[in-house]
Amino acid sequence: MGFIEKLRDRWQASDSLLCVGLDPDPAKFPDVFVDDDDALFGFCRDIVDATAEYACAFKPQIAYFAAHNDGEAALQRLIAHINGAYPDIPVILDAKRGDIGNTAEQYAVEAFDRFGADAVTLNPYMGRDSAAPFLQRNDRGCVFLCHTSNPGARDFQELLVDGAPLYQHVARTIASEWNGDGNCALVVGATFPEELKIIRGIVGDMPLLIPGIGAQGGDVEATVRNGKTANGTGLMINSSRGILYASGGAGYADAAADAAKTLRDEINRHR
Amino acid sequence: MGFIEKLRDRWQASDSLLCVGLDPDPAKFPDVFVDDDDALFGFCRDIVDATAEYACAFKPQIAYFAAHNDGEAALQRLIAHINGAYPDIPVILDAKRGDIGNTAEQYAVEAFDRFGADAVTLNPYMGRDSAAPFLQRNDRGCVFLCHTSNPGARDFQELLVDGAPLYQHVARTIASEWNGDGNCALVVGATFPEELKIIRGIVGDMPLLIPGIGAQGGDVEATVRNGKTANGTGLMINSSRGILYASGGAGYADAAADAAKTLRDEINRHR
Repeated sequence: MGFIEKLRDRWQASDSLLCVGLDPDPAKFPDVFVDDDDALFGFCRDIVDATAEYACAFKPQIAYFAAHNDGEAALQRLIAHINGAYPDIPVILDAKRGDIGNTAEQYAVEAFDRFGADAVTLNPYMGRDSAAPFLQRNDRGCVFLCHTSNPGARDFQELLVDGAPLYQHVARTIASEWNGDGNCALVVGATFPEELKIIRGIVGDMPLLIPGIGAQGGDVEATVRNGKTANGTGLMINSSRGILYASGGAGYADAAADAAKTLRDEINRHR
Repeated sequence: MGFIEKLRDRWQASDSLLCVGLDPDPAKFPDVFVDDDDALFGFCRDIVDATAEYACAFKPQIAYFAAHNDGEAALQRLIAHINGAYPDIPVILDAKRGDIGNTAEQYAVEAFDRFGADAVTLNPYMGRDSAAPFLQRNDRGCVFLCHTSNPGARDFQELLVDGAPLYQHVARTIASEWNGDGNCALVVGATFPEELKIIRGIVGDMPLLIPGIGAQGGDVEATVRNGKTANGTGLMINSSRGILYASGGAGYADAAADAAKTLRDEINRHR
């Protein structure tokens, strides 16, 4: 079963559009992890186990692992844990890769074979041939940056090309030319709800990964209203810090579960 | 000493504009490395030792390490070897990273602290704030994609914005707004020599990293003529496969040295 089908099944089975982002920052871990050499894995595993019930997807951010020696081994074990304990929940490796042919093939091996992710985030700036080695793995998902959630998204993504902003050209090109095997999705920031609405209009029912809820200020209601598909799905609304660090203390897992359930329910009220 | 200063000194001391790319593909290694668990490191170390005399920089491509379990440990040891044995030769980690604030900080730690690189390649699509955590490390270099060497470079990088292609806006923005600390450089493919000339006109004497010579078909003379600065430097002309796999056999190190010397000399004939 491919990534998109797995995601659609999970949306239905979990009644959730919540993507739990795994951005482990040891400086924010509860005291119980002080002096724990296996804290990266242990903390994330506890978050996964506490929130799986409420998640349509998990999204580990590779930078938070790659900043540490042996971080990749922790990431590998974490994804293996998710794939083993929650085989119905897709894993999106947030890596924003992008390079030419031979190198892109190596990155595809990294994401899909070494780490076992169902999908990977990609940067489209280098064009079609840089995406091809990922697109060809058509049982896996390719989640391309379109309009990101940060203020700097305006610097290049909103430049006007033939009267329309660049991000719309990116959305149109991916939807009409790169998605032949139906395994594409896009990253669209919740902090730009009007742009989200326009993108939904361009890409039909293509899944959208939505960062920017919570600390970055994105609004849940506007995100769901402007981003959902006709059947009330189509979105992976990500929350990382708001769930991972809901409690700084010993009750971190219960607090994460509560935060995930609360956000899942808030999202569902607007579907 | 910062990356740019280290690079300028090395251009002079080595009389070379050649960047040796380290893209280790075990399928192409000489037979001596069959069944060698340490082949990624061992092969690259031998190439480094054979070519250092002719190199203005080394550019390990992280994907070729990240495709393997424990590949990061090999990359770490390789860069430590270069920094120890050839402290005057800058190391550019080719990783094409790009993400928002907190995550970008983790990637900066990965490239500069964990791996000890002098510079890292970056993707500008997410804008200024995604670059800031790298730019702030002003003793290190930020090498941004501008016009890449692959055919897909045309898909988005050449879209017209106010009558000028996107890549020119990227070059202008980085040169005029992101380079306050003077630690920026750009990636420009040798396969687009006219665009290289235009970019040199926009960015003054900013260093340019040039992939695309050799297997991709870029021409050395046109690259040097269109890309050099007034003092005959300004370029890191990369060759990877043409040097690494100059001989498939036991004489790989000598063949790599010969290939590096030959290309260094060919570049110099056109300076």
